[in-house]
Amino acid sequence: MQDRLHVKKDGQIIYDICFNNSFDALSDELSALSYDSSVKIMIVTDTNVAPLYLEELKNSLINSFPNLFCYTFEAGEENKNLSSINEIYESLIINKFERRDILIALGGGVTGDMTGFAAATYLRGVDFIQIPTTLISMSDSSIGGKTGVDFKSYKNMVGAFHMPRLVYMNFSLLKSLPKRELCGGMGEVIKHGYIKDKALLKRLYECKESILKCDEDVLGEIIFANCNIKRAVVENDPTEKGERALLNFGHTGGHAIEKLMNFSLLHGECVALGMCVAAYISYKRGNITKEDYKQLKEILTEYNLPTEITPDGFNAINVIQTMKSDKKMDKGSLKFILLQEVGNAIVDKTVTDNEIEEALLTVLK
Amino acid sequence: MQDRLHVKKDGQIIYDICFNNSFDALSDELSALSYDSSVKIMIVTDTNVAPLYLEELKNSLINSFPNLFCYTFEAGEENKNLSSINEIYESLIINKFERRDILIALGGGVTGDMTGFAAATYLRGVDFIQIPTTLISMSDSSIGGKTGVDFKSYKNMVGAFHMPRLVYMNFSLLKSLPKRELCGGMGEVIKHGYIKDKALLKRLYECKESILKCDEDVLGEIIFANCNIKRAVVENDPTEKGERALLNFGHTGGHAIEKLMNFSLLHGECVALGMCVAAYISYKRGNITKEDYKQLKEILTEYNLPTEITPDGFNAINVIQTMKSDKKMDKGSLKFILLQEVGNAIVDKTVTDNEIEEALLTVLK
Repeated sequence: MQDRLHVKKDGQIIYDICFNNSFDALSDELSALSYDSSVKIMIVTDTNVAPLYLEELKNSLINSFPNLFCYTFEAGEENKNLSSINEIYESLIINKFERRDILIALGGGVTGDMTGFAAATYLRGVDFIQIPTTLISMSDSSIGGKTGVDFKSYKNMVGAFHMPRLVYMNFSLLKSLPKRELCGGMGEVIKHGYIKDKALLKRLYECKESILKCDEDVLGEIIFANCNIKRAVVENDPTEKGERALLNFGHTGGHAIEKLMNFSLLHGECVALGMCVAAYISYKRGNITKEDYKQLKEILTEYNLPTEITPDGFNAINVIQTMKSDKKMDKGSLKFILLQEVGNAIVDKTVTDNEIEEALLTVLK
Repeated sequence: MQDRLHVKKDGQIIYDICFNNSFDALSDELSALSYDSSVKIMIVTDTNVAPLYLEELKNSLINSFPNLFCYTFEAGEENKNLSSINEIYESLIINKFERRDILIALGGGVTGDMTGFAAATYLRGVDFIQIPTTLISMSDSSIGGKTGVDFKSYKNMVGAFHMPRLVYMNFSLLKSLPKRELCGGMGEVIKHGYIKDKALLKRLYECKESILKCDEDVLGEIIFANCNIKRAVVENDPTEKGERALLNFGHTGGHAIEKLMNFSLLHGECVALGMCVAAYISYKRGNITKEDYKQLKEILTEYNLPTEITPDGFNAINVIQTMKSDKKMDKGSLKFILLQEVGNAIVDKTVTDNEIEEALLTVLK
């Protein structure tokens, strides 16, 4: 496995994703980006991650970068909002951060999205570094520069495209990841396989034991493959004008269910349910076989991901309404990602409410 | 005079500035940008401008673009904050604005900055159009994609670079501009002359009467020249890594005074005072002559702009402290824009507190 991937824009490298088993290489990576010892660094993290890894990260940086600051917010999607962003701004102002100073996101998707948005908008944009700590952020959300926060229960309604200067993976952080989080992360990994890479799906069957045991080497290989898929997609379409929308496979339904379940399910679990919905429509339209559809449900089950749920006081119609209030709309019609075949997805704007309802009834029990 | 300027990035046209005497051409300009009749348009304006021009603007659009919405905020710099931005988000959400829909800023610099920031961050970025209504916004702030809001009394602390899709000038709007606002706008116009264009300064002496009488043709010519200066600077340096900083001539001191005077002075008036400070330092360093320095004060006086003030409970030291808490810092040292000669400015990071204090004492009486 290579130890890094270059992410390009218009043929120019704009940042690297580098793969490591510790924080040992981080200071050198930052120095290589021309940050010198006078730069101020604000590490943004949450109350789950701080006690586990903050000291280790600070220790790895302190010799080369003594001006370290830290902002820790209360963990949880419910804190991914503009009040938390305001607190980050305040902390940056109090500590006199300037345009040349940087932020580091140490955490999962929520931390990365928030830190990125604060970096995108403080002083009209400062640099930031992603240090993802979960499978889902390593294999998906830390790459591609989507940043943002929720707004009045609308997911990621406010945000910006702001590319990190570096994504630094430290696979050793995965060892503390709770099993449920690991499996949640597999939701996005399986998604990448279904939209782009049949071979990845084969590996997921083969390596199931090792992955569920959190074997660093195997997980590293899987994460590398995922980063490479995501890299290719976002390079072709950095601001989601076209192909990047394919990454939303399972998200049209998934986000709506996530919201209606009051965020009691993990994002990856909701994506799993959303994939079942989209795959059912794809099967009913004759794009994929019944066997393909069943196999998706099988692999999700293998990784402890749900393929059906008991809705908590809502029905299919409510899910459709919630989908329509989400931002994946175009001229008032829903943008659905369907499978053309396993490993190949397409954007479709012709899916009817009836088709969605029928598909939803297969997952809402 | 041409009727438009192209603003380019890397050789590609990214938007036009078009010059008109009415709203008649606006619908055609929007259609030329491929917006069709189904697009939703949110006009953002303030309580000063709405009663004057909102109906006229809506009438000019309604036939081609029937989906018009409006958000009017209470006029004033004190409302250029994140609460106003939140209200714009809410209005966009309630009216189901999607990524393909657009915002129009109808107003001065505050309106343009806020609308641009809301557009930069709603759904990770939607298009927006600038329709500046004041001299200062026509000749300066509507061009270049700087957007943002104040944060806890720190000016423009939160923001983004987000380019408009069109800047539409309607010179007829200037007729209602209060004399003091007109003169305030001349602060930035004179600034452009001092940093880039000696010939413009000559025209400002020649046309003083017509400008102060708000002659549309002469103002149009002056605005065109200013847009062309600003266009060239922002094309070379869209995100203020270098040359664009020259546009901050008069702003290092100006912003600090603006804040310490609790925004009771207009921005252009504070820039005038800031220019006196920077020009005095430039004169003392031998870059410009005493005559040059006196001429700056003269032309400011001709346009009713202040060259000295009675400070309201603060002194030179407080101004220096406030400057240092502003964002025009680099590695802890102030970034001052000095005149190399009339029509030519440079960035300087070596100005000492003593030099600043001496210069400030010439304007604080």
